[in-house]
Amino acid sequence: MPEAVGIDIGGTKILGVRVALSDPTTVLAEEKVGVDRRGDVTLDSIAAMATMLADGPCPVGVGIAGLVNRESVLCDSPHLPGLRGVNIRDEVARRLEGPRHVHVLNDASCAAWAEHVVGAARRYDEVACITLGTGIGAGFVSGGRLQQGRHGFAGEPGHMVVDRFGPPCACGRNGCWEKYASGNGLARLGRDAAAAGRLQRPMELAGGLAHQVSGEHIAHAAREGDPGALAVLDDFAGWVAVGLGNVVTINDLHAVVLSGGLVDLGDLLLRPVERAFQADVMCAAERSDVKILLAELGSRAGAIGAAILGGMPARALA
Amino acid sequence: MPEAVGIDIGGTKILGVRVALSDPTTVLAEEKVGVDRRGDVTLDSIAAMATMLADGPCPVGVGIAGLVNRESVLCDSPHLPGLRGVNIRDEVARRLEGPRHVHVLNDASCAAWAEHVVGAARRYDEVACITLGTGIGAGFVSGGRLQQGRHGFAGEPGHMVVDRFGPPCACGRNGCWEKYASGNGLARLGRDAAAAGRLQRPMELAGGLAHQVSGEHIAHAAREGDPGALAVLDDFAGWVAVGLGNVVTINDLHAVVLSGGLVDLGDLLLRPVERAFQADVMCAAERSDVKILLAELGSRAGAIGAAILGGMPARALA
Repeated sequence: MPEAVGIDIGGTKILGVRVALSDPTTVLAEEKVGVDRRGDVTLDSIAAMATMLADGPCPVGVGIAGLVNRESVLCDSPHLPGLRGVNIRDEVARRLEGPRHVHVLNDASCAAWAEHVVGAARRYDEVACITLGTGIGAGFVSGGRLQQGRHGFAGEPGHMVVDRFGPPCACGRNGCWEKYASGNGLARLGRDAAAAGRLQRPMELAGGLAHQVSGEHIAHAAREGDPGALAVLDDFAGWVAVGLGNVVTINDLHAVVLSGGLVDLGDLLLRPVERAFQADVMCAAERSDVKILLAELGSRAGAIGAAILGGMPARALA
Repeated sequence: MPEAVGIDIGGTKILGVRVALSDPTTVLAEEKVGVDRRGDVTLDSIAAMATMLADGPCPVGVGIAGLVNRESVLCDSPHLPGLRGVNIRDEVARRLEGPRHVHVLNDASCAAWAEHVVGAARRYDEVACITLGTGIGAGFVSGGRLQQGRHGFAGEPGHMVVDRFGPPCACGRNGCWEKYASGNGLARLGRDAAAAGRLQRPMELAGGLAHQVSGEHIAHAAREGDPGALAVLDDFAGWVAVGLGNVVTINDLHAVVLSGGLVDLGDLLLRPVERAFQADVMCAAERSDVKILLAELGSRAGAIGAAILGGMPARALA
């Protein structure tokens, strides 16, 4: 059975896997290396990992944190400045032995593709998979294909404005969705609540310093049932739902899959998001079949999706 | 050469055309009737118009103001309450003589399809056509096909939230795009400016009554070069651009076509929208090929699009 290698290059780590395309969730080999704060990832190190994982001349998929255009150039990436402007496909391919198929996409698009093919979104052909991480990444599937758009940048809902008079975003706009509905957004809502004296347990966890309250502190305290932390989580869920309502209204999706570390909260996150979403989507009655789901593939989704993409690109890309 | 009939059913009028599919912008026959405020449109009157326009058993396309599902049921329509829940395709078809192909879509989707096939968007396969009317209607083309989504509702960006703490919308949310960037939105911005004493000429046109200032008054005064009206138009353009930035960021569009009565303003509207858009879209440098265009087909776009759809549905719908 054909195999493929998938490599997920993020801001903090590179994770590579080799899988059989008949059963991509069973990982046959795995490699992981950290990425330092300067994002000093080299093409040689990516190629070396691919070579190490490959068992013969199998195809390689690469998911990478940043905007990747249709020619496989990394156009923009806050985390990986050294690879900006580089044609990742060509540069990785020429470092591998023999002719190889290399395919490159945005990391969140790879994760979305994995969830669509073998994860939580496998029954849905109109679906967005949204990663609530440090920021917000996403991949959109339309008609069962990964949506690419004009340049290859489709699926960046983190930078839609949901609060025009809100705080400035690094992208230059104000009130982008990821200012509220990401891990960083949760931390900000937590710090605001702490500074306003509305949080006890997360403050203890943060050593009594409001400006040190993190998303993890909120999550930890919410799991213990702390009312203040649960209130922050409710507020956060409202912001998540506003953006989900927008993308569902715009693209008439059948399902949204949430991924990222925060989904470990399970129903503590899902239930308030579902409640707020019902109030926040246009014509909710006509959309009673629309599902909000939690991702199933965890932190390997990006690497698995890259491998599936590398092995079967025609299935993903129209 | 085959011909087709297209009928555009809006909140204030029904416009029907017959066109040759080889040259759909040349209208061979046309009918127009008003719709009263109660939206009292009957299936018999739609069928009668189709029969009157048809020259033999040609196919019929219908565009209708409201949410139309994939089975051709009008699920929701503020303007046409009497047709809500009705399968428009089946009910119109059985009122026509002999077997007939009838296709039904949302009116703004029909207009978008016409602009894509024979209008301003004909060189673009990733494009949104956005009608700035009383509210905001839209149709999205992706990969050269009309995007439908799960239910057939794709392309309702008017109800994306862009200002979460903004005024309530009839849809139940707050700060929807169409509260700002529609004809009604322009009138609201105008009334606010008038009430704050920032408008002279539009106030004269409104008989000195701030609450009577309309979008037409602003447009009229702006054409005369009135600074207050131009400032309101600039503010309005900023709101238009926020939503365009959002849909371009989410779906990575190649072009956006603006339609509706306001586009008669031409460059007075287009230039400030373009300026604001450059500042308001993520990674503008990578999107220098993205165009904002004015519609070419005017008020007949919906009827022409419905006719093209009726005659060649396979080309539109994947």
